[in-house]
Amino acid sequence: APSETCKGPLAPAASGGPQPSGMGWGDLGVYGEPSRETPNLDRMAAEGMLFPNFYSANPLCSPSRAALLTGRLPIRNGFYTTNAHARNAYTPQEIVGGIPDSEQLLPELLKKAGYVSKIVGKWHLGHRPQFHPLKHGFDEWFGSPNCHFGPYDNKARPNIPVYRDWEMVGRYYEEFPINLKTGEANLTQIYLQEALDFIKRQARHHPFFLYWAVDATHAPVYASKPFLGTSQRGRYGDAVREIDDSIGKMLELLQDLHVADNTFVFFTSDNGAALISAPEQGGSNGPFLCGKQTTFEGGMREPALAWWPGHVAAGQVSHQLGSIMDLFTTSLALAGLTPPSDRAIDGLNLLPTLLQGRLMDRPIFYYRGDTLMAATLGQHKAHFWTWTNSWENFRQGIDFCPGQNVSGVTTHNLEDHTKLPLIFHLGRDPGERFPLSFASAEYQEALSRITSVVQQHQEALVPGQPQLNVCNWAVMNWAPPGCEKLGKCLTPPESIPKKCLWSH
Amino acid sequence: APSETCKGPLAPAASGGPQPSGMGWGDLGVYGEPSRETPNLDRMAAEGMLFPNFYSANPLCSPSRAALLTGRLPIRNGFYTTNAHARNAYTPQEIVGGIPDSEQLLPELLKKAGYVSKIVGKWHLGHRPQFHPLKHGFDEWFGSPNCHFGPYDNKARPNIPVYRDWEMVGRYYEEFPINLKTGEANLTQIYLQEALDFIKRQARHHPFFLYWAVDATHAPVYASKPFLGTSQRGRYGDAVREIDDSIGKMLELLQDLHVADNTFVFFTSDNGAALISAPEQGGSNGPFLCGKQTTFEGGMREPALAWWPGHVAAGQVSHQLGSIMDLFTTSLALAGLTPPSDRAIDGLNLLPTLLQGRLMDRPIFYYRGDTLMAATLGQHKAHFWTWTNSWENFRQGIDFCPGQNVSGVTTHNLEDHTKLPLIFHLGRDPGERFPLSFASAEYQEALSRITSVVQQHQEALVPGQPQLNVCNWAVMNWAPPGCEKLGKCLTPPESIPKKCLWSH
Repeated sequence: APSETCKGPLAPAASGGPQPSGMGWGDLGVYGEPSRETPNLDRMAAEGMLFPNFYSANPLCSPSRAALLTGRLPIRNGFYTTNAHARNAYTPQEIVGGIPDSEQLLPELLKKAGYVSKIVGKWHLGHRPQFHPLKHGFDEWFGSPNCHFGPYDNKARPNIPVYRDWEMVGRYYEEFPINLKTGEANLTQIYLQEALDFIKRQARHHPFFLYWAVDATHAPVYASKPFLGTSQRGRYGDAVREIDDSIGKMLELLQDLHVADNTFVFFTSDNGAALISAPEQGGSNGPFLCGKQTTFEGGMREPALAWWPGHVAAGQVSHQLGSIMDLFTTSLALAGLTPPSDRAIDGLNLLPTLLQGRLMDRPIFYYRGDTLMAATLGQHKAHFWTWTNSWENFRQGIDFCPGQNVSGVTTHNLEDHTKLPLIFHLGRDPGERFPLSFASAEYQEALSRITSVVQQHQEALVPGQPQLNVCNWAVMNWAPPGCEKLGKCLTPPESIPKKCLWSH
Repeated sequence: APSETCKGPLAPAASGGPQPSGMGWGDLGVYGEPSRETPNLDRMAAEGMLFPNFYSANPLCSPSRAALLTGRLPIRNGFYTTNAHARNAYTPQEIVGGIPDSEQLLPELLKKAGYVSKIVGKWHLGHRPQFHPLKHGFDEWFGSPNCHFGPYDNKARPNIPVYRDWEMVGRYYEEFPINLKTGEANLTQIYLQEALDFIKRQARHHPFFLYWAVDATHAPVYASKPFLGTSQRGRYGDAVREIDDSIGKMLELLQDLHVADNTFVFFTSDNGAALISAPEQGGSNGPFLCGKQTTFEGGMREPALAWWPGHVAAGQVSHQLGSIMDLFTTSLALAGLTPPSDRAIDGLNLLPTLLQGRLMDRPIFYYRGDTLMAATLGQHKAHFWTWTNSWENFRQGIDFCPGQNVSGVTTHNLEDHTKLPLIFHLGRDPGERFPLSFASAEYQEALSRITSVVQQHQEALVPGQPQLNVCNWAVMNWAPPGCEKLGKCLTPPESIPKKCLWSH
C-alpha cells in the first residue's frame, strides 16, 4: 500500500463516519433500493463521491471492524479462527480473544496529531478488560462490546452491557430496552445524541475522530417510536430510515457549526445484508449474489460514500476498488500521518481518488477465516473456494442465498477450485451467474494476472495469532467494570476454556 | 381510468420520448447499475421525476408497444394469442395479424390537436400494408416493422426491411449492416439523426409527438464504432451507452432550441431485460426476479423518467404505480384531449402525479397471452398463475431466471394458484422471494382487496379479437412497398396459413 500523505491545509480537523451493522449495498436509494427511503444518504452521495465497488475485509462484523481500525486483513490482525477450514468467526461474549495489544488502531495513531476519538455503538473487538476501546486509543465510548441480540436470562448468559467510557451503565433489555415484539428501542436516538454532543464539544477545540457504529439494522432490528411503521420496507426499513435521518442531522450539525469543509465524513457498512434475516429483519444486496457470511459480492460489497464539501467535489462516482481498510490509511494521511512501517498494511490511501479522481490498481481479497476464498483484480474476480453453508445447516433452513442458486457456484460443500478458479467479469456479470469459459483467452489472461498477485500476497503473508479459537462461558459479561455501583454484578460459572464451534 | 385533462398553458408543444427495446430496470445508474454508465439518463432523472414502480403491460415487445400506443391492455387491443393457454406472442414477420383499424392510436388522436407525429425505430404492431404506422396516425416513420434479428437468407426468410415513411429504403444486414461478429452497426446514430432532424424541423412550427423506439439493446445487441468496447459491461453496455448519449443529445437540442419547457419527455422500456441473452447480450433487472417473458417483477417493471423543465419539478421520486399505458392518457391530457369514451382505457392520466405529486390507487395487471397471471394493488402482488417456461425448454438451456430459483414460484409447470394466490409484499420483498403466510391477517386482507379489483376487471372485460394466432410464411417481408425501385423484391412462397406455435 502506498504511504502518500497529505499535510497542511488539507488535514481536516475532524474525520470519521457512520458504519451501521449489516446494511447492504442495495439498501440506499442511490444504489437503487426501489422504495428510496434514504434521502439524507442520497444527498450525501450527491454532494460527494459514491463508490459502487467498495468492499468489506470480511463477510462478518468483528473481523470487518478489526480490519477497518487496523488497516489490516483479519488474517494479519488475528480476527480469524483455525478451529476449522474456512470458517467465519466473530466475538460473541464467550470469546476469549480480542484485539491484540500489538495492533495499532486508528485512534491510537491519530492521537499523535492531536485528535480526540470517540466510538459510539458496537465495538466488537473483544469485551475482556484488555480489549477495552479506551485501552486502544479511543478517548470516549458509549455503546456495547458485543452485538445487541439476546435477551439472555442473566443465568446461562448475561445480557450485554452498555458502557459509558470505562464502566457499564446498564444492560440491553434492562436499562436499555429493546422490545422484541414491537421492535421499539430508543437506542439509535441515544447514539445520535452521543454523536451530536461529541461533535459540538470537539468541533471548536480539538480535531476529532468519531466512529459511529450503530447496530439497528442487525437482527433483532429496531427503531424508535417516531420511525416505527413509517417505511414501505417493514421494520428493517424503519431502522434504515432512522439511521438515514440521524446521518442527515450529523451532517447538518457540521454545517451549522461551520466545520463541514474541515471534516471528512465517510459512510459504509461492515458486511453485506444478512439475507438469512430477510425480509423483515434483513436488507438488500441489490443485484449481487448471496449475503452476509459468504464471499460472493452480496457478502462483501458495501455502500460507500465520501463527503467533504469544498474538497471532495460533488456528484462524483469513482470506480476505484476500495476497502474499509483504506479508511485507516486515508484517515492517517488526512491527519498528516503515515501508517506504521513495521508491518504489512492492506489499506490504501484514497486521497488521490477522492481529490483528483485517480484510479489505482489493487486487489481485493475475500477471506473466510483462514482461507483466501476469492480475489478481485480490475473487473475480474476469481473464486478459489466456493461455499455458502453446509447441507446440514441449509436443510435446517439457514439460507445465505434465498431465491438464488448458481449451479457449481453457490455450493453447499466447501469446494476447492484452486487448481482451476471460477472467474467472473463483474462489469458484465455483477451477479456472478456466468463463469467465464476456462478455454477463453479472457479467462487465461485474467487468471495469470490474478495468480501473480495472489502468489505475491500469500508468499509475504505472516498470519497473526488467531484470536477467535477459544471460548469460555466464564469470560462472558457477568461483572463488567462498574457493575458494583449499579448492583448488577453476576457470578460467572466455572472457567472451562474450549474450542469455539464455528459452523459456517 | 380517470379522464382528467389539462388544457391551455400546460399543453406542451411537443411530447414523446425514447423507449428502447429490452432495457431493464437495473440498467440505469440511477436505478443502481454498478458501472453507472448512463450519465444523461441519470441527469434526466435528477432534473425530473423518477418512477421506481412503473410497469409494462406485457413481458414481450409487440403487446407492450400496442398497449403504449392504444392505452389499452393487449387482451383488449388484440395483441395476444389463444392458440394455447398463457402464451407470450408477438409479431415475427410470419404473423398475419397486427393492429386492428378499430383501435385508436395516440398519434391518430393527437392530430386533432394539430400534432405532427413521427416514429423512429421498431414499430412491431404488424408489418402488412393495413398495419403500416402511417395508416395509424403517424406522419413520418424511419425504421423497421419487425425486430432486427437475422440475418436471413432472403430465401427461407427475407431480411427485415427498413422504411422511410411509406416505402422501404433497404434491409437490415444489406443496406443497413449489423456486424454480428463485432457488434458494430450505425443504426442508433441514424435513428438519433432522424430524431434530431425531426425535432429541429417541428420545434418552431407545429406541436409534435416523437416516438423514439430504438432496438440496440435487443439481441443481437449493437453499437456504433465510437461506443464499441467503451463500456465496463461489454457489448450490451456499449449499446446502453450509445442510447444514453443519444438521449442526452436530444434533451440538449430541446434546450438549445428553447423548447424544453414546452416539451414533455418520458423515458421507459418495453419489457424487462432478456436475461436469456445475459450477460453479453442482455441487461439487468436489478434486485427483481427473472426477466423478459415472465410476469415476475423482472419481466415487467421498467425504468421510467419524466422530464419537463419548469413543470415537473426536479429531483422527485414518485411511488405512483405507473404503466406504459398511462403515457397514452397522459399525452392526450397534455394536448387538451380526452381518450375515446366508447371503449375501456387502462391508462391513467399521470398529470396529478407529475405536477402535484399526487398518488392514485390503481391496479397493475400482469397478463401472459390470454391469462391474467398476477395483479398488484398498493404494495401487494398476487400471483394467480406462475410459470417461467416448460421443463422441455428449460432443459434445452432456455432460462428466463438464470441463477434464481424460488421454490414454488419460478415454476416450470404452469401452476394454478387462482384458488389460493401467492402474495408478496413488494416493499419488504421486491425480489418476490418470500410469499406471505396464507394464515396471516396481512394475506387475508390483501387477498380480499385484490380479489375485488380483479373480479371487477374480469367481469367488465371484453377481450379483443386475438391478432397473434395465425402465421403464414407468404406474408413475410418479401416485397414491401418500394422494393421495385430498389430492385429488392423477393418472391413469396405459397400461402399456407397455420396456427402460430408459441412455446412459452
